[in-house]
Amino acid sequence: MKCKVCGQTAAVAMKSHNAGFCEKCFLDFFRKMVARGIKSQNLFAPSTPILVAMSGGKDSLSLALELKEQGYVVHGLFIDLAIPESSAVARETTETFCRKHGIELLTRDLAREGLSIPLVKKALRRPVCSACGKIKRYYFNKIALEEGFTLATGHNLDDEVARLFSNALRWDEAYLSAQGPLMPETEGFARKTKPLWRLTEFETANYAFLRGVECHSAPCPYAKGASFSVLKNIMQNLENVMPGRKIDFYHGYLERGKPAFALARERENRNVSRCENCGAVTSGGKLCGVCGIRIAIAQA
Amino acid sequence: MKCKVCGQTAAVAMKSHNAGFCEKCFLDFFRKMVARGIKSQNLFAPSTPILVAMSGGKDSLSLALELKEQGYVVHGLFIDLAIPESSAVARETTETFCRKHGIELLTRDLAREGLSIPLVKKALRRPVCSACGKIKRYYFNKIALEEGFTLATGHNLDDEVARLFSNALRWDEAYLSAQGPLMPETEGFARKTKPLWRLTEFETANYAFLRGVECHSAPCPYAKGASFSVLKNIMQNLENVMPGRKIDFYHGYLERGKPAFALARERENRNVSRCENCGAVTSGGKLCGVCGIRIAIAQA
Repeated sequence: MKCKVCGQTAAVAMKSHNAGFCEKCFLDFFRKMVARGIKSQNLFAPSTPILVAMSGGKDSLSLALELKEQGYVVHGLFIDLAIPESSAVARETTETFCRKHGIELLTRDLAREGLSIPLVKKALRRPVCSACGKIKRYYFNKIALEEGFTLATGHNLDDEVARLFSNALRWDEAYLSAQGPLMPETEGFARKTKPLWRLTEFETANYAFLRGVECHSAPCPYAKGASFSVLKNIMQNLENVMPGRKIDFYHGYLERGKPAFALARERENRNVSRCENCGAVTSGGKLCGVCGIRIAIAQA
Repeated sequence: MKCKVCGQTAAVAMKSHNAGFCEKCFLDFFRKMVARGIKSQNLFAPSTPILVAMSGGKDSLSLALELKEQGYVVHGLFIDLAIPESSAVARETTETFCRKHGIELLTRDLAREGLSIPLVKKALRRPVCSACGKIKRYYFNKIALEEGFTLATGHNLDDEVARLFSNALRWDEAYLSAQGPLMPETEGFARKTKPLWRLTEFETANYAFLRGVECHSAPCPYAKGASFSVLKNIMQNLENVMPGRKIDFYHGYLERGKPAFALARERENRNVSRCENCGAVTSGGKLCGVCGIRIAIAQA
């Protein structure tokens, strides 16, 4: 296969674009897709200070590298979950990456916050994944708000498409009116963006490989048989049979699905309430989800 | 496995209901699901004259049998497509079925209408499936309107779920605001219903088998590699991993998805226009789709 741009031998074959790219042209393509994803959805301006939520994985590190090279002011944020045999490696990987690329790294230790994930896992009877996600998002939001950053996460097209499929299967009006590459700033919430939304997991993995991004790829020891990967596989099988369906599904949602649900939700009255303990915005109840987990830990 | 109702040996195992049924209790279950599907969506009243569109397949014949046994006034309608090695057998099967069960059968010959499917296929350069569907729906609608019937088709849950998945993948606002077990009568359109919408293909096949419905099951010789069966398989794979997802997806759509898109479409202004040749309602243009096909045949 030849590079569709320059005709040299291709290094990356991409079915959904029905094309191959050599290394240089692939990196150009990746750059353009990130830039177009930012511009078309108006994610942030060139001078906006960006806080990239870093897990140590290929997506978040690739995102930080690419944004920095496109001239953005990039900081990293690492939340140390204190998961044995996983968090220490992820932290080391992230710190090494940031040192190498001159990216300032903010860190927060959940163990110091009394919320280490093994402790949370012990206190809760259900699988810990949802609580872990909630705690991470809480600190991402809190730190971005306090420090005046726009948040950027490494979610790629496959993450977004699987999430959208899950939301559509449940016809979840709240999520279907809100999901997308941009969550604008609202009372108590920092602006959140997903600049890699146009790029597949395969494309991001190729970028990380070609750019020599050393990343942490071991799966979390607590995440077994997550339903999310079932949905990811289903959408990938569809993509294999009908190339282009993933981006069409997501793009069509942004253009036609999301506005329809946003209109339907406009009529509802939603009150903003604040957590009595920490002051975070909550969707209901006196305490936010994270302070609820704190109480569960105290009572365990 | 035991019947979940009476404890006898089960004859039918149903994963999505996590239950098995003996023959008698399965037929009771089927009956209740049809009745509930009619009542909950207000498809038609007990005295409404029903015209069942019959293909000779298990779904349409089972539907006609069950409706008749539930006391409805049922007529059949068979459109003879004049497809070699297929239509004659389907017609014979349908006629035998109707004679056996005392159901009056209306027929229409596409060959006499100058629209035999082999002729249409020769005149069109694209696959004939979409034109064939258009022609059938045209005559279903025309005859139901002329004779004052409510139309009923044998679409089952799998048909509807695959169609919904296809519509959702494209976020097709027009279809997502209209798809469902009931298409109410509007100017130029008969009332159309799908009383089997709560029952899966597997369940309808079991009903046909247990009731001794002799049906025509050979696939159409023109329908090869249709994308629709890809979507059906995908949704069935999902159902196998997460039982209950198919009916939840469809039900959630009826409760939350469809109203959101209907609201979004309310703001649009849609004009009704009539075909200059046959007077049927068209979505635009001077001629309806079927009269367009007639011209293609004349020019071929």
